Amino acid sequence: MPRIVYIDPVGPEGACHSLKEELEGIKHKRTEVEFIHLNRGPRHLEYRYYESLIIPDLLHTIRNLEEKGYDAAIIGCFYDPGLLVAKEIASRIVITAPAEASLHIAATLGYKFSIIVGREKWIPRIMENIEFYGLKDKLASFKTLGLGALDFHADEAFTVKKLKEKAIEAVEQDRAEVIILGCTMQFGFYKELQEYIKVPVIDTIIASFKYAEFLVELRNRFGWQVSKRYTFENPPFSEISKWQLDQQYP
Amino acid sequence: MPRIVYIDPVGPEGACHSLKEELEGIKHKRTEVEFIHLNRGPRHLEYRYYESLIIPDLLHTIRNLEEKGYDAAIIGCFYDPGLLVAKEIASRIVITAPAEASLHIAATLGYKFSIIVGREKWIPRIMENIEFYGLKDKLASFKTLGLGALDFHADEAFTVKKLKEKAIEAVEQDRAEVIILGCTMQFGFYKELQEYIKVPVIDTIIASFKYAEFLVELRNRFGWQVSKRYTFENPPFSEISKWQLDQQYP
Amino acid sequence: MPRIVYIDPVGPEGACHSLKEELEGIKHKRTEVEFIHLNRGPRHLEYRYYESLIIPDLLHTIRNLEEKGYDAAIIGCFYDPGLLVAKEIASRIVITAPAEASLHIAATLGYKFSIIVGREKWIPRIMENIEFYGLKDKLASFKTLGLGALDFHADEAFTVKKLKEKAIEAVEQDRAEVIILGCTMQFGFYKELQEYIKVPVIDTIIASFKYAEFLVELRNRFGWQVSKRYTFENPPFSEISKWQLDQQYP
Amino acid sequence: MPRIVYIDPVGPEGACHSLKEELEGIKHKRTEVEFIHLNRGPRHLEYRYYESLIIPDLLHTIRNLEEKGYDAAIIGCFYDPGLLVAKEIASRIVITAPAEASLHIAATLGYKFSIIVGREKWIPRIMENIEFYGLKDKLASFKTLGLGALDFHADEAFTVKKLKEKAIEAVEQDRAEVIILGCTMQFGFYKELQEYIKVPVIDTIIASFKYAEFLVELRNRFGWQVSKRYTFENPPFSEISKWQLDQQYP
Amino acid sequence: MPRIVYIDPVGPEGACHSLKEELEGIKHKRTEVEFIHLNRGPRHLEYRYYESLIIPDLLHTIRNLEEKGYDAAIIGCFYDPGLLVAKEIASRIVITAPAEASLHIAATLGYKFSIIVGREKWIPRIMENIEFYGLKDKLASFKTLGLGALDFHADEAFTVKKLKEKAIEAVEQDRAEVIILGCTMQFGFYKELQEYIKVPVIDTIIASFKYAEFLVELRNRFGWQVSKRYTFENPPFSEISKWQLDQQYP
Amino acid sequence: MPRIVYIDPVGPEGACHSLKEELEGIKHKRTEVEFIHLNRGPRHLEYRYYESLIIPDLLHTIRNLEEKGYDAAIIGCFYDPGLLVAKEIASRIVITAPAEASLHIAATLGYKFSIIVGREKWIPRIMENIEFYGLKDKLASFKTLGLGALDFHADEAFTVKKLKEKAIEAVEQDRAEVIILGCTMQFGFYKELQEYIKVPVIDTIIASFKYAEFLVELRNRFGWQVSKRYTFENPPFSEISKWQLDQQYP
Repeated sequence: MPRIVYIDPVGPEGACHSLKEELEGIKHKRTEVEFIHLNRGPRHLEYRYYESLIIPDLLHTIRNLEEKGYDAAIIGCFYDPGLLVAKEIASRIVITAPAEASLHIAATLGYKFSIIVGREKWIPRIMENIEFYGLKDKLASFKTLGLGALDFHADEAFTVKKLKEKAIEAVEQDRAEVIILGCTMQFGFYKELQEYIKVPVIDTIIASFKYAEFLVELRNRFGWQVSKRYTFENPPFSEISKWQLDQQYP
Repeated sequence: MPRIVYIDPVGPEGACHSLKEELEGIKHKRTEVEFIHLNRGPRHLEYRYYESLIIPDLLHTIRNLEEKGYDAAIIGCFYDPGLLVAKEIASRIVITAPAEASLHIAATLGYKFSIIVGREKWIPRIMENIEFYGLKDKLASFKTLGLGALDFHADEAFTVKKLKEKAIEAVEQDRAEVIILGCTMQFGFYKELQEYIKVPVIDTIIASFKYAEFLVELRNRFGWQVSKRYTFENPPFSEISKWQLDQQYP
Repeated sequence: MPRIVYIDPVGPEGACHSLKEELEGIKHKRTEVEFIHLNRGPRHLEYRYYESLIIPDLLHTIRNLEEKGYDAAIIGCFYDPGLLVAKEIASRIVITAPAEASLHIAATLGYKFSIIVGREKWIPRIMENIEFYGLKDKLASFKTLGLGALDFHADEAFTVKKLKEKAIEAVEQDRAEVIILGCTMQFGFYKELQEYIKVPVIDTIIASFKYAEFLVELRNRFGWQVSKRYTFENPPFSEISKWQLDQQYP
Repeated sequence: MPRIVYIDPVGPEGACHSLKEELEGIKHKRTEVEFIHLNRGPRHLEYRYYESLIIPDLLHTIRNLEEKGYDAAIIGCFYDPGLLVAKEIASRIVITAPAEASLHIAATLGYKFSIIVGREKWIPRIMENIEFYGLKDKLASFKTLGLGALDFHADEAFTVKKLKEKAIEAVEQDRAEVIILGCTMQFGFYKELQEYIKVPVIDTIIASFKYAEFLVELRNRFGWQVSKRYTFENPPFSEISKWQLDQQYP
Repeated sequence: MPRIVYIDPVGPEGACHSLKEELEGIKHKRTEVEFIHLNRGPRHLEYRYYESLIIPDLLHTIRNLEEKGYDAAIIGCFYDPGLLVAKEIASRIVITAPAEASLHIAATLGYKFSIIVGREKWIPRIMENIEFYGLKDKLASFKTLGLGALDFHADEAFTVKKLKEKAIEAVEQDRAEVIILGCTMQFGFYKELQEYIKVPVIDTIIASFKYAEFLVELRNRFGWQVSKRYTFENPPFSEISKWQLDQQYP
Repeated sequence: MPRIVYIDPVGPEGACHSLKEELEGIKHKRTEVEFIHLNRGPRHLEYRYYESLIIPDLLHTIRNLEEKGYDAAIIGCFYDPGLLVAKEIASRIVITAPAEASLHIAATLGYKFSIIVGREKWIPRIMENIEFYGLKDKLASFKTLGLGALDFHADEAFTVKKLKEKAIEAVEQDRAEVIILGCTMQFGFYKELQEYIKVPVIDTIIASFKYAEFLVELRNRFGWQVSKRYTFENPPFSEISKWQLDQQYP
């Protein structure tokens, strides 16, 4: 009975509380799902500064989940904030995030994908992840909507209209074969867009949740879990305690 | 109840019949698994010529499976022979193969992976796939054992000894964080090697089977299936019948 | 007296029988030229499926030509179908194809080239070859006409008009310095387009034929023929006969 | 009179207090230099976790320096921790760091450089920066000493011996033309090594300090400072105060 | 007291004599600046032919400056003509040029830069340098004005209007975060354009001059000067004199 | 009757006068071949400085050959000195050089090639050309002999021994499928080495000569000659004469 936690890595006010219900609807029968947010934090993470602020709390949350025996944690933002460092500090708990999951799925479903984001500002940040994941050759283009993370659901009809426009451009001009909705706040739109544009449209919350279930199974059955050589080598816990880091950063 | 077929894309003599049992042991409870081979063909596919010969039969097998309503077909060779064209002719059946599945999993579990193959001859062929899948930046190195596809189980102790040597080189010298066993005929070795080398060692048969289950679920639940724009656009069935291709190539 | 065969790798109905005459007009005085097609097959090869079907016949045709002592075979389609595997099974006969030949010539005549193709569908397929040939850094762009392989000569005035439009875009916007007509079925247009656009316009049938003559001379005079290490290592003929592949695939 | 602060981004115990003197020795006559550390933190930053912990304090330190009118801040660790986010939150203060500075200088002094690091663990982390800075084509190799950040000065003779060995390998085998000492804790070694190996050996503390002076001059004289479009666009200060981030993260 | 010479690498008629004054205005207080041109030569260097003609004179000029003890020479054209060979023949004198300096500065100030050039003709030539300097991943785009090197100051209002148009395109469409004025003859425009477009606009004469001062300081203080291994290894002066090259090429 | 000139781009003393005979032996029956050298110059071109010195004379030689109606000129050094600028000033005469020709041929005969050069010093210079020709993905490795350009024939037995060693390394360790002898002064060795190593070994003088014949035929028959857009656009002859460049550079 895998226990998976979806972390909305923002403060209580920004968290999208209806997500729990959504996740209940898509999980495997035997999976248990929880939805949490942080106790403090900005309402969105469009800026690197906001990300930097929440990462220590996020990491401590994940260490705590690991101690309690959870099987997986999802870091619910398309910047995949803290994903690499979370894999470094974790020992056994599976950690994944929307971009990692979506990019691998999209690369499997078509030759090139486009990512529809809110603002140009996000592109270099997302590009960093694509380079690390090694998938930049699969990128057809970024398209931008001119909307912030908190704007997508203000006027949903308008958002849908813009998404359709940009998806058409991506497919017709940039030869994208798959579309990724490059912000978790674009939840709820993939189905309509997918029917319209007739190529796969990846909702990144769903993608990350199903990828987490998949990775938990690989870990449990075959011992395939994050490599502890080099990139994700744990920091020595002796150092952490000698330096009293837990007390210094409560 | 997903029905998945593992195709050993060689003739009856070459087919590894014990695989069915193995797959029974790793499948989801509700998955039904079948194991088939082709009615004619070489005993291994180390050469492009052998691949070219079997592909038409393989494609017709897959079209047949699709008509019968199977959910997924796995093309069981690390060259992923015919994977792209199979995705082109298929409409709904999920198709995957060992390299596609293993590369995405390995890229998720570590920064760089190495692939241990039998002979240098295989490397450019595998490299072609890695480029298409867009993951060449994740490759630390290829290592070769000096063994053909049919040799791995002739003297298993020797094979294990060589695998350990090469895995050490990959991790220590080439900084690989994950190992992929680059031939389906290397089945049966991953566990011992993984315990020894202490980084994930991917068995590509298992990887492709679990990836197939995962992709079937994404298709069934979210409609995420291979994009039919451009690369995998179906050939027009009107042409196929007008030109009587089915009769010409029985 | 080099004997060169141009293979139109489609069935009898699709074959462009007037080509023989054209080739007679461009060959070296001492070259003997033949034009053949396959005994069965689709009328064009726009889809990977069609390619896969014809490749075994094509390979057996080439083995046959080699046994008869021909000097070179040209695989007459811009997808260069089966070129790599043909080089693998061949021992001495020179094999080349339109894309291989055109790309090397175009790279010599200018810094960047554009390729004008019929449909977007073709682009990823052609891109695979460009990557293998190692010339992707020389590609300025693909331009598409919105025409299938069999449409170019339906309304030649229209085709010319579209070619001119796209060539202008390639040169003015994408800074192409050379144009490649990315389908053998675009034969007959290069001269008019070249006079119009004033950069070299490569007809890929001509390019492949002259490249074949060039390669035959290099082989005959200096022993420079396809390397038999690794990529193009012959399959062991002992295996082929032990497994009775010739009987299995007549 | 430019005022530049070198931040040793570790806690008080780890900070290398003798650096202030060193910096006094290399500054422009009119530059004022200060040396600070953080009030809490680990003693080194070899792990992403340690980096993540110190970044919020580091950013608040830099905002504070900016308010006080300092001209530049140097983030003194070869991981350049927080450099991108620091440029995002800063408005006018120049921020640089050892890797950024050293890589640009090394790229100017030779065709390829090698970086000598302490442990393999560091390489993917540093590689991320090299990719972002766009200089990965200039990298000849990484060489590792098998020493942690705190070990370099434990037995300096041994460190020098190892440095010489690795520098020779880098120059002779990997064809490096410049050596970068890839950890600020390798201070004090560049001169001896440079005389020995006879190619430039970059001390990254010095490099970052002089680069800071250079960038301050460019800013003051020509208005060339970090672009505020896209990557380094400031977070809206209205949001920061509306969400009370300063109170939430004291 | 560093002595720096700015070489306008054209003949007396083409040289931009007012530059000396400009450079006086931007130099460090203690720097001495000289401005020279060649005794013969074309009036601009838009063509490789013109470059090739002036390079021997340029090199002999630089050798002469080195003998006289000058600290740095700047080769004042955005093609950086002869920069690599000048570094090869020089022993101690610092040599830099507009593209080298501007590209490193621009890469430091933003994620991607665009270069505004006069004519498309220049682009492949400049691209060669960008590849050598290793910074091609930082290039957002080239924009062209449709003006030759000698046209920028014919109608300055028109030039400014075009520069603004192209800068807007670069920033808005190509997501450039920094603009480089890709010809030394675009001097005098950066300030107005920078105020208008609100991202850094690099004047490449200024950039190269300040970079020269910076490099001289690195050389004088830390011995960091061009590596003499491999790329910039001096030709053996014994050969030069044995072959009487100085007499042969007076 | 094509008239082709092989230019040994060194002074009279360095020129390898026996080459004429060799070329007579490999030319097409109807080709006329001439062998020339420059009137002054160094004896080899291992340094960029030597190259820079000879280029103006080389260009004037080529312009002269073009005026006299020659069909092709070969610039006989593996650095391909002045090839790009020669294509720029030429209007109709074909110009090629050893690296351009050899790289395209080698890329056609195998998946990856290695280049055996004399000294490490040469590698970055040759790499520049490989990047411009767009073929860097085909390069398996450089191997060095530790010999200067004038040393290869001092002790031919020793040279052959070293060539064999390095060729073995290239094929066995670096997986090269073709060998290029990366200096025209390595003439005379390809046959013995080719028989020994059993992969194609390209003599670059022969390669360039046959490539010249091939290119002349393409030009004469199909009008395929160097594109005059952008990279190889001629300098305006009006400028050349207005500025009296011919008089200034006699």
